[in-house]
Amino acid sequence: MVTVSIVNVTSYTALELLRLLALHPLFVVTSVTGRSAVGKHLGDVFPQLQASPATINPALVITEEPAQTDLAFVCLPHAAAAESVLKLLDRGTKVVDLSADFRLHDVNIYEEWYKHTHPAPALLELTTYGLCELHREQITNASLVANPGCYATAAILALVPAIAAGIISPSIIIDAKSGVSGAGRTPSLTTLYDEVNENINAYSLNGHRHLPEITQELAASAPTGSSSVEGQLRVTFMPHLVPMTRGILATCYADLKQTTLTTEDVHALYEKHYANEPFVHVTDQSPHTKWSYGSNHCFIHPFIDTRTQRLVVISCLDNLVKGASGQALQNANILYDLPETTGLMAPSVYP
Amino acid sequence: MVTVSIVNVTSYTALELLRLLALHPLFVVTSVTGRSAVGKHLGDVFPQLQASPATINPALVITEEPAQTDLAFVCLPHAAAAESVLKLLDRGTKVVDLSADFRLHDVNIYEEWYKHTHPAPALLELTTYGLCELHREQITNASLVANPGCYATAAILALVPAIAAGIISPSIIIDAKSGVSGAGRTPSLTTLYDEVNENINAYSLNGHRHLPEITQELAASAPTGSSSVEGQLRVTFMPHLVPMTRGILATCYADLKQTTLTTEDVHALYEKHYANEPFVHVTDQSPHTKWSYGSNHCFIHPFIDTRTQRLVVISCLDNLVKGASGQALQNANILYDLPETTGLMAPSVYP
Amino acid sequence: MVTVSIVNVTSYTALELLRLLALHPLFVVTSVTGRSAVGKHLGDVFPQLQASPATINPALVITEEPAQTDLAFVCLPHAAAAESVLKLLDRGTKVVDLSADFRLHDVNIYEEWYKHTHPAPALLELTTYGLCELHREQITNASLVANPGCYATAAILALVPAIAAGIISPSIIIDAKSGVSGAGRTPSLTTLYDEVNENINAYSLNGHRHLPEITQELAASAPTGSSSVEGQLRVTFMPHLVPMTRGILATCYADLKQTTLTTEDVHALYEKHYANEPFVHVTDQSPHTKWSYGSNHCFIHPFIDTRTQRLVVISCLDNLVKGASGQALQNANILYDLPETTGLMAPSVYP
Amino acid sequence: MVTVSIVNVTSYTALELLRLLALHPLFVVTSVTGRSAVGKHLGDVFPQLQASPATINPALVITEEPAQTDLAFVCLPHAAAAESVLKLLDRGTKVVDLSADFRLHDVNIYEEWYKHTHPAPALLELTTYGLCELHREQITNASLVANPGCYATAAILALVPAIAAGIISPSIIIDAKSGVSGAGRTPSLTTLYDEVNENINAYSLNGHRHLPEITQELAASAPTGSSSVEGQLRVTFMPHLVPMTRGILATCYADLKQTTLTTEDVHALYEKHYANEPFVHVTDQSPHTKWSYGSNHCFIHPFIDTRTQRLVVISCLDNLVKGASGQALQNANILYDLPETTGLMAPSVYP
Repeated sequence: MVTVSIVNVTSYTALELLRLLALHPLFVVTSVTGRSAVGKHLGDVFPQLQASPATINPALVITEEPAQTDLAFVCLPHAAAAESVLKLLDRGTKVVDLSADFRLHDVNIYEEWYKHTHPAPALLELTTYGLCELHREQITNASLVANPGCYATAAILALVPAIAAGIISPSIIIDAKSGVSGAGRTPSLTTLYDEVNENINAYSLNGHRHLPEITQELAASAPTGSSSVEGQLRVTFMPHLVPMTRGILATCYADLKQTTLTTEDVHALYEKHYANEPFVHVTDQSPHTKWSYGSNHCFIHPFIDTRTQRLVVISCLDNLVKGASGQALQNANILYDLPETTGLMAPSVYP
Repeated sequence: MVTVSIVNVTSYTALELLRLLALHPLFVVTSVTGRSAVGKHLGDVFPQLQASPATINPALVITEEPAQTDLAFVCLPHAAAAESVLKLLDRGTKVVDLSADFRLHDVNIYEEWYKHTHPAPALLELTTYGLCELHREQITNASLVANPGCYATAAILALVPAIAAGIISPSIIIDAKSGVSGAGRTPSLTTLYDEVNENINAYSLNGHRHLPEITQELAASAPTGSSSVEGQLRVTFMPHLVPMTRGILATCYADLKQTTLTTEDVHALYEKHYANEPFVHVTDQSPHTKWSYGSNHCFIHPFIDTRTQRLVVISCLDNLVKGASGQALQNANILYDLPETTGLMAPSVYP
Repeated sequence: MVTVSIVNVTSYTALELLRLLALHPLFVVTSVTGRSAVGKHLGDVFPQLQASPATINPALVITEEPAQTDLAFVCLPHAAAAESVLKLLDRGTKVVDLSADFRLHDVNIYEEWYKHTHPAPALLELTTYGLCELHREQITNASLVANPGCYATAAILALVPAIAAGIISPSIIIDAKSGVSGAGRTPSLTTLYDEVNENINAYSLNGHRHLPEITQELAASAPTGSSSVEGQLRVTFMPHLVPMTRGILATCYADLKQTTLTTEDVHALYEKHYANEPFVHVTDQSPHTKWSYGSNHCFIHPFIDTRTQRLVVISCLDNLVKGASGQALQNANILYDLPETTGLMAPSVYP
Repeated sequence: MVTVSIVNVTSYTALELLRLLALHPLFVVTSVTGRSAVGKHLGDVFPQLQASPATINPALVITEEPAQTDLAFVCLPHAAAAESVLKLLDRGTKVVDLSADFRLHDVNIYEEWYKHTHPAPALLELTTYGLCELHREQITNASLVANPGCYATAAILALVPAIAAGIISPSIIIDAKSGVSGAGRTPSLTTLYDEVNENINAYSLNGHRHLPEITQELAASAPTGSSSVEGQLRVTFMPHLVPMTRGILATCYADLKQTTLTTEDVHALYEKHYANEPFVHVTDQSPHTKWSYGSNHCFIHPFIDTRTQRLVVISCLDNLVKGASGQALQNANILYDLPETTGLMAPSVYP
């Protein structure tokens, strides 16, 4: 048994972790924290948990600080997360941090995008970016894993095979569409039902904070020996809010270097790239976010727009699962040398 | 290993069975039928299944008739279901029938509501109505279980404790609200997105076919020795279509016989009634259908409207799980002497 | 030209008034107030208004207190509304108050339900309850009209013909379902998209504040000479939140006094009752809230549940139009001796 | 008075025309056709119309062929539309055709995309493409106007100012998102509520039929004297289905020729271009489709993604109004020398 803390349990990512951990054979949640609900029982905040299996105890009392456990999932917003992570590491707790605080290796880029001083810049370079399909070897030996952003996961998984194979030019457009749960559980006018329902709009027009993650990982995926791709990358990332609770669809556009490539060629390239991945599926038709609802699966469809010889790659996933808590659990499985799929094989809920 | 057929796999209830069976330790789907998709692979009809665990094989070919298996779930519409069930029973296959064909013990009532001649009226009296919480002992020994209707499950579970305790008068109103998936996967104007979205309406004003199931089971729950309750029962059941995919909420109203009962009294009565039930939860606040999304749990909140001394009982469940396929699996677990919760302990997906 | 103030313009009911007044031939909005947005232009708060016709000026500056105008619509929450109304009346401004502050004639009932001392109890008895179809003669001569609650409008219009005709017993159940916009524009966890979407739940189980309005008006509609109906009325009113922005559906149940009445009889009775009403339509099929989306129309379908000899009446309307701002404008038209339909004839937006 | 026929009245575009014409001072609907509903009254097909103003008569009987009228709106699918249009023109009726049959001037392109022989190729070159903001002078003298596609309207209005000004390179990506009503009123699995709800997906990956319209109009907008832009245009157009009824958002990407242009520059250029347009609004923030819900307005926000020096233009409109029936009425107003805004000034319905 591995004891587990969930820090900031009143968030949606924490609730999703509880759902996934309920069926996990090894990890047992023994500590939950949440400043706004200190002293309440877990079942007070989430009444549906009284119907959970015994592994999630609705009578667990929410505390301000986590108890000593083997492992912690930190679901705090950035800045607050870093503080909590540093304390947990000090105690010897392994940490999967779902915030952005340790995702960027370059402290300058972090501070440019997040507008505050990082409390542990030295740690940044050492922390593993927990996109399992890219970095599972490093994760195995880590004590801190920075769980990727939801958009970043969708976009990076969509583009890495093409970039690694060197088939596209570095000018890339990522038009991404997300459900509302990515915005969290704190009420605001922009997430009010009446404002979201029957509406779509783009947001973060001046730059969304997942962009530097995407750029960092795409640049690192370029074939060695290639001229500095990072300098060349011209990525426009445009997120949109869609009237649905879960799901991200990323539609990615890039020009092909060679115009002789066919859809079959890129499909084969992607299939080979992800051949052994239990959670990444290369499809031969346009994927629907609903295929991934509630599951840890990511669906990717690459094809050539033959009129323009552009590569288009469409990827989708559930932002709360592969885009957050499912990937966090996948990372934790790796940390504990468990099969990556442990507790994560439930199919999507459809319709 | 128990081999399983799913008859009419192109329906939503069948898809939901596949989802639940994917994690079942004993039942293995080896045969799937579906007239409109004969010869196709399962993964052609439901592309998301390519991401399923090995226990559900997306390469399974859809046939017209089921292969010989130990167990079959019949997901056909009424009339067609009865035909299929009779053939399966003849072969010695155990059957859970998700249609209405064997739910009513009185053939006259069946033929009045379903407007066609029943092919096996003698079987009707013998078949078990598979509401597990009411009839689990009979189910154990059955070869055919008639899986209850979704509305009927919500309404019966809400009202049986009060009726069995003899605390309400037999004049009952059930105002029920359902998501759209109860209407199935066949497109029609009434289930078109644009017609359902931003709309609510009542339907089946002349009587919904789940009414006789409800009446049959409520009458049978009245305390023995009471005067014929069936004759007295005056149930108005009014279903409504709500713009959501899953979920049923039944708001039930009845006058109390004794006006001294308090909300605490009825809460205690209900808690006692369902004390050992893993899937029925008596709550102390108004339940939300979303608490049950994707799970087999049913939440029930009884209270007294003190201004009028009426008992109000609100129950909710996921119409595709406890209201259909989850309950079908619960029935199958009973048929095979497995713990009822086998494969059914996944928490709800929230939000 | 009649100059108009809108008090608390940052609310949804105010926004809806702007929409309706945009095409009104006589009323011109010259003053808008809103504490949280003082100094901003109307077009800053509602960017879509830059596309409005000239009659609504997006450059109008939001102030703290209303300028002197002929007419004011008060869109404040209760208590705050009463304060504002008293000041406006003092100045000689005619007022349509969309809050609950002047709806109840009995100050004790008001204070029981709203838990604060009413600042002008003497005014309560004199104020007209602005349900146009019931009280249009009184409204003509009023200086203050209390605009009814959304649920109350739907329920009262559904039940008054039956009560006035003396055909039902006084034991009534109103099961009502509402879209989210009735909860207003202030963000909260209960109106967050992720919590509302794919969910239905009952709320205000201990009594919703529209109940005393309903009781007051139903009692007053009973035929004179009948024994005190108010004392006899046993109304259970149960509101539900539905995942949609606009629309209320009220399903009302009551026992018939005479069991010989047919659906045709009650249909004829309702048709006669509303024969001259431009906004109330008696239908011969189950009405859909979507039929009223964006319009001032109310659809009512009465019928007999023949198995139980109960009268069931289903009514629906758009909670922001006939349930709030549309009815407010209808009241204002009456105040100014305009045809009631002025500015209100736009059909519903469907689908 | 101008008498009007609506051909194929059982479609959503026809229903939307009825809504808009209900308040039109000059056009009166005297004939409605619809093969599937011949002999029915209009109010049978659309029960909500019994609440319409007298100008739309719910008792109007649906016929197979249109009666003789001054003007006709043809709401048939392509191919069937052309047949009907030719008959109407023969009779001297002015026609606004909402289908695609006369949008493309080049018959070869038409036949390549629509896969059938055009019945009147000679007419194609002469017909006006009814995007009012581009071609209103030609429309004035037309007897047949080809009403543009919904996506095409959003994309062309977004891109024409930049193309006409010669500031972008001809390599363009249009990532468009649409509500479901664009798919019409005929039920299908892809428009079933359960399939659309909580889902987003791209479709028409091999090319959507609005692409040649877009290309035709963008090429024609290039400054004269420029080298053939049509040959150079490399447009990728990727439509997506979003879980909402109404609304299109087009996010358009193109590289700037000069990297010195700022967001302010392009905003000024767009404002100047659309200075006199009553229905096109250049915004200084990201537009929401909901701003246009039910109205004929189009909102456009151009800006520079400064990290990549790309021009991004986001436009939105209601696909049933400016994207179909509203624009059809705008065209009809032009045909009859009425102010373009006649009957079209109702603000959007928000929320």
